[in-house]
Amino acid sequence: MGRAQAVAARLVSGWVCGVGVGPGDPELLTLKGLRLICKADVIAFPAPLEGPSFARSIVAPHLDDSRVELPIRMPMQESRFPAAAVYDRAAREITGHLEAGRGVAVLCQGDPFLYGSFLYLFARLAADWPVEVVPGVSSLTACAAAAGSALAARNDVLSVLPAPLGDAELEARLSACDAAALVKVGRHFPRVRRLLMRLGLEDRARLVIRAGLADERVQPLDSVDPAAVPYFSTILLHKRGRAWL
Amino acid sequence: MGRAQAVAARLVSGWVCGVGVGPGDPELLTLKGLRLICKADVIAFPAPLEGPSFARSIVAPHLDDSRVELPIRMPMQESRFPAAAVYDRAAREITGHLEAGRGVAVLCQGDPFLYGSFLYLFARLAADWPVEVVPGVSSLTACAAAAGSALAARNDVLSVLPAPLGDAELEARLSACDAAALVKVGRHFPRVRRLLMRLGLEDRARLVIRAGLADERVQPLDSVDPAAVPYFSTILLHKRGRAWL
Repeated sequence: MGRAQAVAARLVSGWVCGVGVGPGDPELLTLKGLRLICKADVIAFPAPLEGPSFARSIVAPHLDDSRVELPIRMPMQESRFPAAAVYDRAAREITGHLEAGRGVAVLCQGDPFLYGSFLYLFARLAADWPVEVVPGVSSLTACAAAAGSALAARNDVLSVLPAPLGDAELEARLSACDAAALVKVGRHFPRVRRLLMRLGLEDRARLVIRAGLADERVQPLDSVDPAAVPYFSTILLHKRGRAWL
Repeated sequence: MGRAQAVAARLVSGWVCGVGVGPGDPELLTLKGLRLICKADVIAFPAPLEGPSFARSIVAPHLDDSRVELPIRMPMQESRFPAAAVYDRAAREITGHLEAGRGVAVLCQGDPFLYGSFLYLFARLAADWPVEVVPGVSSLTACAAAAGSALAARNDVLSVLPAPLGDAELEARLSACDAAALVKVGRHFPRVRRLLMRLGLEDRARLVIRAGLADERVQPLDSVDPAAVPYFSTILLHKRGRAWL
């Protein structure tokens, strides 16, 4: 870059935002998310070590090849989160774009601030740059829509419980709430199902897989093949069976 | 209607959906919500006994006068929910439109299935008609975006707690979770604040009012005027202070 260009670049203000792109259906992107993605010079997104990014695939209908694409590649294994070195490097690359006056949209599956890995980028960038966060449709409400059953009504206590928690903790939390969403079920399915059976709650619960996508499934727990439960699947439970009762 | 018209009307299929229009910012409507509202012959929406509907105001930029508008008017007092007679009548009116082959979009502030009054219409309509639910951005994630602070990370237990619950119940739930969103705060603010002080959690909590709107406010609890806390306001709490810690 020549000196005149460098001066011009510093006069242009870089900006960065985290955009919740929703749980998977490209139509569940918000108008604001779409506007900022279209306006961005750079899009960043989580991706596995090899292969395509799910977050990018959600907005793919709106992308052309005019943007710099910055995949944030990391092993998709729950034991490896958070991968500090990966986020450090991504934050440095994004900072480079911001200092050059570019706009950066970071794509986040679901919502950026609900169990999202965006958090770790936000923590690194927000000290030096204003980071706008555009909320998105979360998998919780998408799962409820798919199941045709409300998450919570009236004065219900709703507990959002990561399935990797231990049995005693899950049992205490499930006993105390009116409704629950168990997230990140994956390989924990058989254990969580046994727990729900012991609490007499199994018939009030359903497993939701890939809500809003063409191959979405909503299943009673006794019909589930435990070997076919992906990490990003959710068990919804309402103790009244139906929230409006 | 003449006989030929009546036969034709029955050949046209009516449809109904509940559309989450997000927490207030018109740009937080989803592409799917926008498409279905534009396609609808009739839009229905909750409204106070007199005056404009907040849900309708969110999508007003996309409306012209080509649609039948069906306000579902009810007293906006928490003690009066659910108003069975109001929902019975609204369900009858919507059924009339469906039987005439019209498409009906019911507008729902936030998400239809998270503490939404849409639930009571859904319960009445779903026995006879397939009711599609289009999830929306919930106030929870919009509040977190406004506050610049994640709702939950890693294996955090997130409790969604309606503020009208009693002190003992709130205290037990707040003690047991990692993070909480206290919804419907309104006149319960002074009581909830005292409770959070007693638990030593006041400085980890913030009040969020009208997230995403021009007059959005995010306040530490000790700076809040208790007389100026609307019903739809939220206290966000994370016990680590910041979810990424």
